[in-house]
Amino acid sequence: MPNPTAAMLVIGDEILSGRTRDGNTHYLAGQLTQQGITLAEARVVADEAPAIIAAVNALRGQYDSVFTSGGIGPTHDDITADAIAAAFGVGISHRADAMALLAAHYERSGMEFNDARKRMARIPDGAKLIDNPVSTAPGFILGNVHVMAGVPSVFQAMVATVLPTLTGGAPLLSQSLRVHRGEGEVAAPFGALAAEYPDLSMGSYPFTVNGAHGTNLVIRGSDAARIDAAMTRLAALFPA
Amino acid sequence: MPNPTAAMLVIGDEILSGRTRDGNTHYLAGQLTQQGITLAEARVVADEAPAIIAAVNALRGQYDSVFTSGGIGPTHDDITADAIAAAFGVGISHRADAMALLAAHYERSGMEFNDARKRMARIPDGAKLIDNPVSTAPGFILGNVHVMAGVPSVFQAMVATVLPTLTGGAPLLSQSLRVHRGEGEVAAPFGALAAEYPDLSMGSYPFTVNGAHGTNLVIRGSDAARIDAAMTRLAALFPA
Repeated sequence: MPNPTAAMLVIGDEILSGRTRDGNTHYLAGQLTQQGITLAEARVVADEAPAIIAAVNALRGQYDSVFTSGGIGPTHDDITADAIAAAFGVGISHRADAMALLAAHYERSGMEFNDARKRMARIPDGAKLIDNPVSTAPGFILGNVHVMAGVPSVFQAMVATVLPTLTGGAPLLSQSLRVHRGEGEVAAPFGALAAEYPDLSMGSYPFTVNGAHGTNLVIRGSDAARIDAAMTRLAALFPA
Repeated sequence: MPNPTAAMLVIGDEILSGRTRDGNTHYLAGQLTQQGITLAEARVVADEAPAIIAAVNALRGQYDSVFTSGGIGPTHDDITADAIAAAFGVGISHRADAMALLAAHYERSGMEFNDARKRMARIPDGAKLIDNPVSTAPGFILGNVHVMAGVPSVFQAMVATVLPTLTGGAPLLSQSLRVHRGEGEVAAPFGALAAEYPDLSMGSYPFTVNGAHGTNLVIRGSDAARIDAAMTRLAALFPA
């Protein structure tokens, strides 16, 4: 049975303007791979409702699960929760359990629980909250869409909460061989080997060190014995 | 007149598996912003023809220009050129000018110009080559789609070749104010100011230093005088 599939949707003008470099996609990719879930696509869209709605609806229909990051804070440009509600055609309101969490948090920290902060308790109807152990304001799950914060420490904590609840597949394993030859030289035998192992994914990644060209040859799959067999063949093709 | 729009399409299993962290999107974002071109969307897809074709056709219809990175090397997993040809419904073959460039390069470097390396001269019919001053194998432009290498140094060199040929708009300018208050505290006055300047884009980005919360408030737009005016108001709202 093929592994479950997932998509990442990064929401934020600051990524597209070049102000901030997204790291959440790379983090999620590593976590999903360990869990045996195939990250099949990632997208970045601006803080604009039509763009968010279109992307969420395209991705949630195409993949088993969707993860979003960004746009769930207290300011006017945080429109993710409203856009997700619109994408699902459901209502959204300040929810009592989220309000209680935030009220207790601001009480403890001696800060005013003002209208802006109350916005973070706006949750689409029917959603399940995702715990935020870092800064309290929750994420949420609606259908197969997991809505999480953009701040990396919060995003990572939410991923840690959510991942164990998902059904994974066989973890994706990989082995690699570093050869001191250019990609163009290894391409033919490497391609022929890949054709013999259609159940494995083989990729080549060139590198340059001190002006010398080399290639990392990577074999990925979920069957450790098959990868071992292919690696033995690969090592024989390119002896050190 | 609104600025021209662009999309980035990153092609590569290694990004989605978490092996490699994409940096080309962030680089392109900064370059486009300086040129007054709005990067409106970015996507990452696997080295699979149907995924590449669907993404290219969706993006080239929706935005003024599209930039791709990855999958134009000599190995079996380098299928971008064929996928782009399929997306446009045109043929693809070893093109004479690309063959000549590569033949001269391998002649100079004393390496065999073998079949794998000749694959890098496969160019869709009607495309224009993009110079590769780093490692010779060219990118190409077909319609509004700019097909470039995934290796960052080559990608960056190709962006430098291509960008001056594109019609830009007014460069996106930005100013930011660092305030030592949480997002929830600045949200209401900042949102009210944003509503007064609908021609500018205002975003807030929380940070934590030594346990203290602060927020970077960023104002973006193409009219320097309007940004100055808004920044003066912003600074008055949040005196140091």
